Amino acid sequence: MAVIAPSRRIRRTPFSDGVEAAGVKGYTVYNHMLLPTVFESVEADYRHLKTDVQVWDVACERQVELRGPDAARLMQILTPRDLRGMLPGQCFYVPIVDETGGMLNDPVAVKLSDDRYWISIADSDLLFWVKGIAYGYRLDVLIDEPDVSPLAIQGPKADDLAARIFGDAVRDVKFFRFGMFSFEGYDMVVARSGYSKQGGFEIYVPDSAVAMPLWDALFKAGGDLNVRAGGPNLIERIEGGLLSYGNDMTLENTPHECGLGRFCSTETAIGCIGRDALLRVAKEGPVRQIRPLSIEGDLPPCDRLWKVYGDGEKVGQVTSAAWSPDFETNVAIGMVRMTHWKPGTVLEVETPDGMRKATVEAKFWI
Amino acid sequence: MAVIAPSRRIRRTPFSDGVEAAGVKGYTVYNHMLLPTVFESVEADYRHLKTDVQVWDVACERQVELRGPDAARLMQILTPRDLRGMLPGQCFYVPIVDETGGMLNDPVAVKLSDDRYWISIADSDLLFWVKGIAYGYRLDVLIDEPDVSPLAIQGPKADDLAARIFGDAVRDVKFFRFGMFSFEGYDMVVARSGYSKQGGFEIYVPDSAVAMPLWDALFKAGGDLNVRAGGPNLIERIEGGLLSYGNDMTLENTPHECGLGRFCSTETAIGCIGRDALLRVAKEGPVRQIRPLSIEGDLPPCDRLWKVYGDGEKVGQVTSAAWSPDFETNVAIGMVRMTHWKPGTVLEVETPDGMRKATVEAKFWI
Repeated sequence: MAVIAPSRRIRRTPFSDGVEAAGVKGYTVYNHMLLPTVFESVEADYRHLKTDVQVWDVACERQVELRGPDAARLMQILTPRDLRGMLPGQCFYVPIVDETGGMLNDPVAVKLSDDRYWISIADSDLLFWVKGIAYGYRLDVLIDEPDVSPLAIQGPKADDLAARIFGDAVRDVKFFRFGMFSFEGYDMVVARSGYSKQGGFEIYVPDSAVAMPLWDALFKAGGDLNVRAGGPNLIERIEGGLLSYGNDMTLENTPHECGLGRFCSTETAIGCIGRDALLRVAKEGPVRQIRPLSIEGDLPPCDRLWKVYGDGEKVGQVTSAAWSPDFETNVAIGMVRMTHWKPGTVLEVETPDGMRKATVEAKFWI
Repeated sequence: MAVIAPSRRIRRTPFSDGVEAAGVKGYTVYNHMLLPTVFESVEADYRHLKTDVQVWDVACERQVELRGPDAARLMQILTPRDLRGMLPGQCFYVPIVDETGGMLNDPVAVKLSDDRYWISIADSDLLFWVKGIAYGYRLDVLIDEPDVSPLAIQGPKADDLAARIFGDAVRDVKFFRFGMFSFEGYDMVVARSGYSKQGGFEIYVPDSAVAMPLWDALFKAGGDLNVRAGGPNLIERIEGGLLSYGNDMTLENTPHECGLGRFCSTETAIGCIGRDALLRVAKEGPVRQIRPLSIEGDLPPCDRLWKVYGDGEKVGQVTSAAWSPDFETNVAIGMVRMTHWKPGTVLEVETPDGMRKATVEAKFWI
């Protein structure tokens, strides 16, 4: 794979100096920004994430801020998830769809107050959709991308590390809730969330000026915890069934196909975009859906769709795959037709290196 | 610079097999897709682009297609450029702005017929804005991203190479016009346009299936023309004053700041978004604007904003810079306050490697 040509358009993050000093070896580009993904190696980073604690530069999870009297109304227009029970201090995973029910993004909404939300986005310019809808509806709401850069602490020792910076009260933050904590005079949202199954926090760093001081403080405080720089790990996230927008789902897919039907209360989410399309899908169920697959043999990196065949016909596609040292198989995320969902069903996957035997699993590796 | 971690989310193009076979050395990511930028070296590619002919995989210039009875109305809502005189067969460079006049993209609109347009986009998900606006306005128009992948032929020998594939009639296509030409049974839009000042064409390849056959045919036909694979060249595009969305302009900037005022007929572009904001700017002129700068001394790659100082105060920023072998100076694109526009004005640029002396030039190097 070739290198990334430098340009301002591929934005550095407020943590990039720290990431470089930590010896980053691989990046991806996410929301026009650098996302470090490899430090020692994908496998070594995976092992370390599962045993110790890592600090991740996920500044690329940009925020779309909604602010003003119509913020709550707009938030409900944007998602088929029913937000009536959402309180300040809560984070909600919210599928965002277009009028046909196609996925535009799968962000986490953070309710700061009744008239202020952050939408912490996956890799698409959701800002453009939100601004377009607000303009078309003539809503009284300000929408912009604030200088807020998430920094994740992930791994079994995440609570210990976070407590050394923010105090023991951070241990009491519940899953998908947040508290306000202070560091060097800055108040910051610290949420129990993150793109791994190892537990931890996401800190919404509220100003680029405090980014490197916080990064440095975490590494200084966590020396004996064996803290390292890390990033979303391909192996761990596939094992855990964490989907990736652009990889495992696109505008082509409904939330129900992505197994996100439980986050859609289309019937009661009055006024949401995509309601007409999704009511029918919710009733009848999707024809194809995300399934965990194990794949045999050696695999190249999954950098494109791999077609999946069953009984001689195309029945789906694989969009993410990696060798799992812990489960000693290639773990993969597939989109499979309902005729071939039964656990144990044997399929064939067409990779650039040839056909591989695959098996439908009952659940992800968690 | 580290390597790009492979994933489906960073999309390959229909020409990627050819690009890899041609020995690509550097990529950038553009519209969630690979854009090859370096083959031999930036300087060697630059020299070759100016003397011979190159074939560029610019599939990342994705199309947003508007189709239906309200397509023309939507197109005019989207841009402050007056489109009343636009005929089928024409390409218009159209600034797209939000309601505050901030740039969202600077694409080329291609008018296929009275009810069908392609918007050939720069690096932002303009599809989301266009869909949001169309939905908010309840317009009768279909919007999607078709399987259309631009392939550019650029360089002094571009006409000769194109004529060998499409016949001599292609030589008669005028600047920013297109004709329909046939290759292996596929009709395709061939426009005289492209992201260099060396002349040439952009072929809107209408189906991935014909992409590699066309790529191979061009290299087979152009052997004696010394045809090579290339890509948008940093040095050549700065010399020519070709701006890059995300580098030299963002949502922060009006078209007038970017020197694109001549593409805005805000007064007569009735119904366009951003009209209120831009009428005032059009009348009073921008306070800061793009200016060509020459910079002395050695420069690191410009991968972030460089602040520009004049008379001890911050008066602007540099967003693109490169050493020009032909003009024997560092050529750069800056955004400068009107107090310091006068050609010959001496400024200071703050790079990560230290302060550098810069001079405001009267025009770009063309």
